[in-house]
Amino acid sequence: MAKDFVVGVDVGGQTTKIGVVDARGDVLSQTVIRSDTFGTDAGAYIQALAEAIKLSIAQAGKTAEDIRGIGVGAPNGNYYTGEVAFAPNLAWAAHGAVPFSKLLRESVNLPVSLTNDANAAAMGEMAYGAARGMKNFIMITLGTGVGSGIVIDGKVLYGHDGFAGELGHVNVIRDGRACGCGRKGCLEAYCSAIGIAKTAREWLGCSDEPSLLRLIDEEKLSSKDIYDAAVRGDKMALRLFEYTGSLLGRAFAGFIAFSAPEAIVLFGGLARAKEFLYEPMLRAMNANVLGIWKDKVKIIFSQLKENDAAILGASALAWEL
Amino acid sequence: MAKDFVVGVDVGGQTTKIGVVDARGDVLSQTVIRSDTFGTDAGAYIQALAEAIKLSIAQAGKTAEDIRGIGVGAPNGNYYTGEVAFAPNLAWAAHGAVPFSKLLRESVNLPVSLTNDANAAAMGEMAYGAARGMKNFIMITLGTGVGSGIVIDGKVLYGHDGFAGELGHVNVIRDGRACGCGRKGCLEAYCSAIGIAKTAREWLGCSDEPSLLRLIDEEKLSSKDIYDAAVRGDKMALRLFEYTGSLLGRAFAGFIAFSAPEAIVLFGGLARAKEFLYEPMLRAMNANVLGIWKDKVKIIFSQLKENDAAILGASALAWEL
Repeated sequence: MAKDFVVGVDVGGQTTKIGVVDARGDVLSQTVIRSDTFGTDAGAYIQALAEAIKLSIAQAGKTAEDIRGIGVGAPNGNYYTGEVAFAPNLAWAAHGAVPFSKLLRESVNLPVSLTNDANAAAMGEMAYGAARGMKNFIMITLGTGVGSGIVIDGKVLYGHDGFAGELGHVNVIRDGRACGCGRKGCLEAYCSAIGIAKTAREWLGCSDEPSLLRLIDEEKLSSKDIYDAAVRGDKMALRLFEYTGSLLGRAFAGFIAFSAPEAIVLFGGLARAKEFLYEPMLRAMNANVLGIWKDKVKIIFSQLKENDAAILGASALAWEL
Repeated sequence: MAKDFVVGVDVGGQTTKIGVVDARGDVLSQTVIRSDTFGTDAGAYIQALAEAIKLSIAQAGKTAEDIRGIGVGAPNGNYYTGEVAFAPNLAWAAHGAVPFSKLLRESVNLPVSLTNDANAAAMGEMAYGAARGMKNFIMITLGTGVGSGIVIDGKVLYGHDGFAGELGHVNVIRDGRACGCGRKGCLEAYCSAIGIAKTAREWLGCSDEPSLLRLIDEEKLSSKDIYDAAVRGDKMALRLFEYTGSLLGRAFAGFIAFSAPEAIVLFGGLARAKEFLYEPMLRAMNANVLGIWKDKVKIIFSQLKENDAAILGASALAWEL
């Protein structure tokens, strides 16, 4: 029987989304379970996930025989080992390595392939989105953190140990701001949703410049607030995107010297501020890149529907099974 | 007939070295021609090269039937197009693109594969040297400039356009020293043989610290002089290697976040100062790398005989023909 469908599983800190997907990238059914109500009991979580997958397959009007396999995108997911290890936002995988693929395979009796969320996003964009037909590109996810998935000759780069592509933790400002990883000056510390909000707080604290951002409780100030202020023409908000975009563009110039991609593809909450980020990003990238790449490398934005993107990305992994 | 031999051609600014190589990496014969006596006449240079290749094959006691192909390492050599383009140190290829592979193939009637010198060095190290058996490593050549060859899953990374792996031009000091590429603060501007000599001149100029380096005509001060002074215990010379090694190690930390290699492999004139560079390099790398890679990635030095290395590297390309 033709196995023309795949299952995509997107494991997030709070919820896990499950969907059945066809070859065109249409999501036939979706289910959601909590990720955070199982304490440290990885087995119980996987059991609940297996039930949800079976439900989702049934809801799509399919049976296990129609399914080629299950693709999973999870924080700190390792493609080589199939483990989710030391993922701070998942209580059941925070303090050790969970053999995720093995456990899930045993529960649902289907092949399982696992990687981290940014690599899954890259796969999704290549299978169904903005990177269709591209063989060399770099996916940058601008969300709470900054993730990356690097595609070389049509394949995600995993490296010697499966952890390649941690571009959110490349240094952009020497001895700069503390990053969640314990080091200083990482791209993620400045150019994530949390990073741009931190920059805003710093700027508000060291000047009296009037800004709509001053109307918001500083503790709660988010990247969305900065976006809204920029839409209303707030000068500081616009400069915050200019600064953040410039740092991203500079970093991209370094990435290009590494893998000479056709394009940088952006995805994630902060990438929604496309109208404010694009110009400074492109300008800084072209100002800092080696001459041979000036005005050659594209910056493009994800074309996947935001609600489906994570499931689609994870599902794309399963076509290789 | 078994084609058990290859020809390696190393194109340098002044001379071109040609050698016939067997599968174990033994160089059976060597010939040298000038690269710089043909003016802008690429055809005349290729003709002379073809003659030298035929001579070298005959000197090795072989005929064209024994040869699998010719591998060429050349500055700005492009693997995809077979062209040498805009190579400032080669008068016959300085102002345009020379279809090197095509011309040479027509002249000697053997398959030709071409890449840049750093990629060739990586191939050589993988075929015959320190990286035998490794599938993921980064070759850094520390010579007059800083070059790199990135190996992923056993293959050199060429990227979308053939120019991937320009790690000598990654920014290490924002708005730093001018680099030959026209930009500022590149790794090459600090960590090449020329770069360390520049640092020495800067340091000598802005202090009165006694140093053996003051005995040398400042204009002529070379990385070799700094090495010799370091061997004699000169404090400033030792600090120059400490500083240069630290910058390299920091840069390596960024490279690791990209491709998660098993090792960084070093080659070239400046890499001879292994005893002074290794410790600061390793320390800075481990201090700046993301936790998952701390004390995991090796720094190793080329194991190829220096006289043969360039020919061996180029020849390794031809085994894929």
